[in-house]
Amino acid sequence: MPKVSQQYLQARSSEILDAAVVCFARSGFHKATMRDIVRESGLSAGAIYNLFSSKQEIIAAIAARRHDEERRLFEEALKQATVAKSLKAIRDHFLSELNSPKQRLRRRVTVQLWAEAQHDSTLQKVARDTFAKPHKLLRDLLTDWQHRGEIARQMDADAMARFLIAAFHGLVLQSEWDERLAIKPLLDIFDVLLVAATRPESGQPSDP
Amino acid sequence: MPKVSQQYLQARSSEILDAAVVCFARSGFHKATMRDIVRESGLSAGAIYNLFSSKQEIIAAIAARRHDEERRLFEEALKQATVAKSLKAIRDHFLSELNSPKQRLRRRVTVQLWAEAQHDSTLQKVARDTFAKPHKLLRDLLTDWQHRGEIARQMDADAMARFLIAAFHGLVLQSEWDERLAIKPLLDIFDVLLVAATRPESGQPSDP
Repeated sequence: MPKVSQQYLQARSSEILDAAVVCFARSGFHKATMRDIVRESGLSAGAIYNLFSSKQEIIAAIAARRHDEERRLFEEALKQATVAKSLKAIRDHFLSELNSPKQRLRRRVTVQLWAEAQHDSTLQKVARDTFAKPHKLLRDLLTDWQHRGEIARQMDADAMARFLIAAFHGLVLQSEWDERLAIKPLLDIFDVLLVAATRPESGQPSDP
Repeated sequence: MPKVSQQYLQARSSEILDAAVVCFARSGFHKATMRDIVRESGLSAGAIYNLFSSKQEIIAAIAARRHDEERRLFEEALKQATVAKSLKAIRDHFLSELNSPKQRLRRRVTVQLWAEAQHDSTLQKVARDTFAKPHKLLRDLLTDWQHRGEIARQMDADAMARFLIAAFHGLVLQSEWDERLAIKPLLDIFDVLLVAATRPESGQPSDP
């Protein structure tokens, strides 16, 4: 039997995950079956069960793939000349996602994961990671910049990262309910926070 | 047959909704049955079916009750002496909810509603309203204050309201994954936005 290459397995895996996203988005994680995913992928059942034994494993792999993409995005953003430009690159990436049909399909599945994880202990860590992984990336980035003196010391990097990711998750929901969600005005609101973070004097808001 | 009072019906309805929240939070909207809700409520099946014919009607009524509460909260907040105090009252109410066991139970059901609505057309409007109703309240409030000159004219009231509700929904998710979610640091981040909204000169952030 020929030894299959790592690259070949990754390509098959990626096809399976794409097919699963389509099935989960169409029927819901609950109702979609492994058989649906086999059919959607056009691959053999054997090819799929060789890589994934359950829908739970597949949805975990979908999340892991996303986390890899986010990690690469953060690495790319760090190459920008200034902190402000790096933050804007990250902001633009996430917000432009909200109107991308492919990403919207993926995000529909994320919403299902959030609900499903309430009653499925194997999915709880996967659901938690949809927050915890980007939170760690963003928090560590903000903290690094604080140490380098490029971001206000008083700014609570952990809370700021939490808040920004919370806003993004909330906007994922809004984009599901309104396909014409206008992104530009939201960028300006994000900027109020980014400006506050990068200007030392406005790190500690005064009591109005 | 004696005519039942409006008050009596409201009290029964409220008991049924509380029982349904417990059942949906425990088993999921999908798996919980009308029979479970009858049992949890301690009322007769007739008493329940007299008021609600399906789980869909019950979850819609749970959402409607919440919208009424939110409307009252906004009316109360408006009685504060200044715009800043009104906004803080609203902010404190919503954020303190995140650590209230009763509200957390209700919010678990909201997350299920978001997912369930993807594949249930009767629930789509209910899910959309979890955003649309508070958004209208907050946007109208901000717009009113703009007309009275108490909030920066340049601030996009619609986008600011969207963003604040997005952040709240995202924090609802985070509070589900972390029971010890610290609220205080998040209040400070909210304040950066509230200060920006109430200070005319910071309504239009400069390009960093």
